[in-house]
Amino acid sequence: MNDRPIGVFDSGLGGLTVLKEIIGLLPGESVVYFGDCGRAPYGIKSPETIRRYTFQNTRFFIETGVKLLVIACNTSSAHAYGPVSAALDFPVVEVIRPGSAAAVRATKNKKIGVIGTAATITSRVYERVIAEMDPSIEVYSKACPLFVPIAEEGPDWWAHEAARIIAGEYLADLRETGIDCLVLGCTHYPLLEEVIRGAAGGGITLISSARAVAAEVRCALDSRGLRAAAEPVKNTGPVESTGPVKNTGPADNAAPPKVSLYTSDSPERFRTLCGSILGATDGADVYTLDIEKYESRLP
Amino acid sequence: MNDRPIGVFDSGLGGLTVLKEIIGLLPGESVVYFGDCGRAPYGIKSPETIRRYTFQNTRFFIETGVKLLVIACNTSSAHAYGPVSAALDFPVVEVIRPGSAAAVRATKNKKIGVIGTAATITSRVYERVIAEMDPSIEVYSKACPLFVPIAEEGPDWWAHEAARIIAGEYLADLRETGIDCLVLGCTHYPLLEEVIRGAAGGGITLISSARAVAAEVRCALDSRGLRAAAEPVKNTGPVESTGPVKNTGPADNAAPPKVSLYTSDSPERFRTLCGSILGATDGADVYTLDIEKYESRLP
Repeated sequence: MNDRPIGVFDSGLGGLTVLKEIIGLLPGESVVYFGDCGRAPYGIKSPETIRRYTFQNTRFFIETGVKLLVIACNTSSAHAYGPVSAALDFPVVEVIRPGSAAAVRATKNKKIGVIGTAATITSRVYERVIAEMDPSIEVYSKACPLFVPIAEEGPDWWAHEAARIIAGEYLADLRETGIDCLVLGCTHYPLLEEVIRGAAGGGITLISSARAVAAEVRCALDSRGLRAAAEPVKNTGPVESTGPVKNTGPADNAAPPKVSLYTSDSPERFRTLCGSILGATDGADVYTLDIEKYESRLP
Repeated sequence: MNDRPIGVFDSGLGGLTVLKEIIGLLPGESVVYFGDCGRAPYGIKSPETIRRYTFQNTRFFIETGVKLLVIACNTSSAHAYGPVSAALDFPVVEVIRPGSAAAVRATKNKKIGVIGTAATITSRVYERVIAEMDPSIEVYSKACPLFVPIAEEGPDWWAHEAARIIAGEYLADLRETGIDCLVLGCTHYPLLEEVIRGAAGGGITLISSARAVAAEVRCALDSRGLRAAAEPVKNTGPVESTGPVKNTGPADNAAPPKVSLYTSDSPERFRTLCGSILGATDGADVYTLDIEKYESRLP
């Protein structure tokens, strides 16, 4: 069971910011990532459509046999975490609570800003979650629908003048509220961190949930005894035999950890963009996934 | 046969600009429109994905029993018109030739600009089609990937300052080329006509294919004897009987022409946005379509 991969999905590239942190924190784990680029973006679509796509993605990971699922998409987390986590018999980590908790810890003046897709902001999930953690905190939120298309356009656009102007426009009202930290409530937004930071103005702490989500994943694995071998098995050539090999359990015999990338659009562009976000992806295989063939209802 | 509807589809809202012209020119025809908002936009996706979606949409219209199909999406037209038109036994009208022909007629200095989605521009279909019509014409093209997300954001964004700046950026190179007309090579772009016109500068004629496509539809129906009753049967209350009703053929007994709107996302937002583009949509029904259940191969 421990050698099964972790599953991670997002509507497109954004979840790779979470994947990167998971790989960094848990180098002994194999991970299967699915980016639904063929149907991206999710955040402009209706709750019903978001749930249908999330359920299909979940079906793929059930079939893959993952030991833990990360919904690395705020929009899916906002609209489908409840039913998905209830339907599965393995742990599901979403991205809204870890980011909210980090913001609640970071704020000093109890004024938190949240930016996200139209679907995430309309759901008011951040307001609810932060109020559960500390009802005295004021939350100011703003939908930034064009950030995902800009992020998905690739690195040339992430610090582009147009991105800067749109960010200035989106964040104008938030700047007036006196917030001291701003939750990037969409896993694409760290790609635009520079322009968002510029538009938010000095003295505002940006909160990306990616690192907090990776910590949550480690915690969920540890508490259930689901960690793979602590250290990756490095294949450095033939091992000199120093006596009979003792089988001390599955971890020692495990295949080296592996990152497999799936996308519902063409693998070529996805491979290039994965390289921009993850750094080298030489070790990762990229596959096309026909996500539409999966059932759109949870088991 | 003549009373069957015309089918029209686009990745989202853009094709409604074509639908509007068809309704205006052919008020006696019933039309079924499908906007694939659940998977929009198409123009950032790979040729394989665009073809798969186009083939599924085509399957829906085959099942619906349309007499003519309009691919009111430049991206689908660029990548899938050939196989779709070859597979069907009823006429298929796409949007690239009518727009190109209008531009070839309009240009005086034989320099034409074309703007479209990344997938349309990469296909170089406009260059090929215009060269067939007049090889002495120079074509300058430019992908404008953020125009569709901006158009789909709704009317508040269509003349927004950010749209103006992005348009200025996209069209900067084209302004230097000396073009005297500019093809809006995406059916969403007429929604941004004002900012595109401003960015293109004075003296450049904008060519929207919507009207030319409607004329092409009329021509294709006429040449095959497929027109419905010339005048819509208006239901103005109970008809006074002036004697026995003579059955002069199916046209006289036909139901009044009807516009039916389908979308793969929620009908509510689609209905509102349809209203913004078409004007009143009181007479139109809006339905949700589960497009993923259709086969992704042509018959």
